[in-house]
Amino acid sequence: MSAPDALSAFLAGARERIDKALERSLPAPPDAPTILSEAMRYSLFAGGKRLRPILALAAADAVDRSLHREAIRSGDAPSAIDLALPAACALELIHTYSLIHDDLPSMDNDVLRRGRPTLHVVYGEGLAILAADGLQAQAFAVLAQLPDASPAARTVLEHRMMRVVRVIAEAAGPIGMVGGQAIDLQAAGQAGARVTLDAEGVRAMHARKTGALIRASAVSGAIAAGAAEPVIAAVDHFGTDIGLAFQIVDDILDVEGEAATIGKTIGKDADRAKPTYPALFGLDRSRALAADCLDRARQTIADAGLTAGWLVPIAEWVVSRKS
Amino acid sequence: MSAPDALSAFLAGARERIDKALERSLPAPPDAPTILSEAMRYSLFAGGKRLRPILALAAADAVDRSLHREAIRSGDAPSAIDLALPAACALELIHTYSLIHDDLPSMDNDVLRRGRPTLHVVYGEGLAILAADGLQAQAFAVLAQLPDASPAARTVLEHRMMRVVRVIAEAAGPIGMVGGQAIDLQAAGQAGARVTLDAEGVRAMHARKTGALIRASAVSGAIAAGAAEPVIAAVDHFGTDIGLAFQIVDDILDVEGEAATIGKTIGKDADRAKPTYPALFGLDRSRALAADCLDRARQTIADAGLTAGWLVPIAEWVVSRKS
Repeated sequence: MSAPDALSAFLAGARERIDKALERSLPAPPDAPTILSEAMRYSLFAGGKRLRPILALAAADAVDRSLHREAIRSGDAPSAIDLALPAACALELIHTYSLIHDDLPSMDNDVLRRGRPTLHVVYGEGLAILAADGLQAQAFAVLAQLPDASPAARTVLEHRMMRVVRVIAEAAGPIGMVGGQAIDLQAAGQAGARVTLDAEGVRAMHARKTGALIRASAVSGAIAAGAAEPVIAAVDHFGTDIGLAFQIVDDILDVEGEAATIGKTIGKDADRAKPTYPALFGLDRSRALAADCLDRARQTIADAGLTAGWLVPIAEWVVSRKS
Repeated sequence: MSAPDALSAFLAGARERIDKALERSLPAPPDAPTILSEAMRYSLFAGGKRLRPILALAAADAVDRSLHREAIRSGDAPSAIDLALPAACALELIHTYSLIHDDLPSMDNDVLRRGRPTLHVVYGEGLAILAADGLQAQAFAVLAQLPDASPAARTVLEHRMMRVVRVIAEAAGPIGMVGGQAIDLQAAGQAGARVTLDAEGVRAMHARKTGALIRASAVSGAIAAGAAEPVIAAVDHFGTDIGLAFQIVDDILDVEGEAATIGKTIGKDADRAKPTYPALFGLDRSRALAADCLDRARQTIADAGLTAGWLVPIAEWVVSRKS
């Protein structure tokens, strides 16, 4: 199998496991009201790339292969991928909630997402807000469901998962994703006095808005798999570069993409006078910045002895993707 | 000191500890953007009753006095109240976020809350939605911050707090509070086909919408303090009755209250044709139902040997309150 085919096979397998786990992660009627269940599922199963959960699983797998990890002594410990699945689900639930709220009329006012009407267009604003709130709460409910394990293994896993809760909550909250979205609203003149961002301001906004959760994805996978501290730090650096590269490529795709390909209104960022990398640096320099991120990410992984597995191929895919 | 004075003293002391802990629970600039910090604080420090965190602390204290609890062997274990403080803060952060979203134009469309303009009136809808999202995320970040303790104590506390995360996330999410709000939107004709609720339907809606988080408040305080399983079950029953009583009294106050006293637009529920206890049963029967809840709550606490402390006086306050 060629390298791209092998990556495709890994991604397809990972997406299948993630989607099955996401199916189980949402409460169904009568536990949850039918209309709320439908709304949550509409957005969760809308053809997302699953980048964040894939990164979590890939980081767990790379840590497992590297042996830079804490062993669980009892024989009943789940596999590294199984250990990272709750984090993977939680990250996708949080990402999905953030898209629903971002699309609202009082935020980006998007009516189309991945080629389909956005949730508030279909179910109304009130229920869209609630469905997203429910997805965020459910993310933490999923993180707190531990696998059946011996008392000794359970103690180890609870320690890891408590740290994962903290990493994901901080990445999702006011010092992370929500903070970035607030800065974005200010820059668009939709909250308080309009703020004009320079290049460093744009980088810092994206580091929160999309970077924090992508970084947390890789880190929480590594923690769930029992990575040693230096390995967690390396995965954190890797995640930081991948998060930035992802955003730069997103901005580039928004400028040059076609509505049919990326399934949202094209050129919208420029219309809203949103600060973007192409607007600040031009397309060529933006592409070079994304390539720099990829180089740094590769080096980080090599230095940490995490080259076995899929972290680097995923980083390459993030930079070369066309949608 | 007379009984009401003693309760007032307990409530005042508890509120002071809770407010100090809440101050520490929110990130400040530059960790969080200034405008987002201000918005979160505007709603969090708006003169709320702090019922949920008070219940958490009172349940922890009652468990501690009863000795129906797991002892932490090492000498460095925090007090029962200290152990319950993170849960207390998380519950108030979640309650506050839910009020912000409930007040939005696409939900209840309230412009006044506790006598002040609602958050979206002051900061705009976009930032109000985000501030609430940030409060929910921060709730789980707070739960995942463990006190300094010996390794042995830490293992015990992580086990308890992981369960608290699960209890609070489920109570806040689609099977709890968010689910109840979705049913409320349907009953008001604001989501999907309008649903007409009978008496049982109204009870079930409130059991989710306000009941689930109040119940989780008492339960998480008991878990944090190391309560034995039968005690946790009793506190859960107690919380269920208190939650229902709270909602019935809220409905009664809405009908008979004065805007100056409860600080929101009076008679609004009836205007919106919202299903309420007075509308279904009349005022006298509603008062009798609240008194029944109080009787059951008293009996539960007596049977469980939890009469020392403040659970019953708090239940009496919930039913007799005038605002």
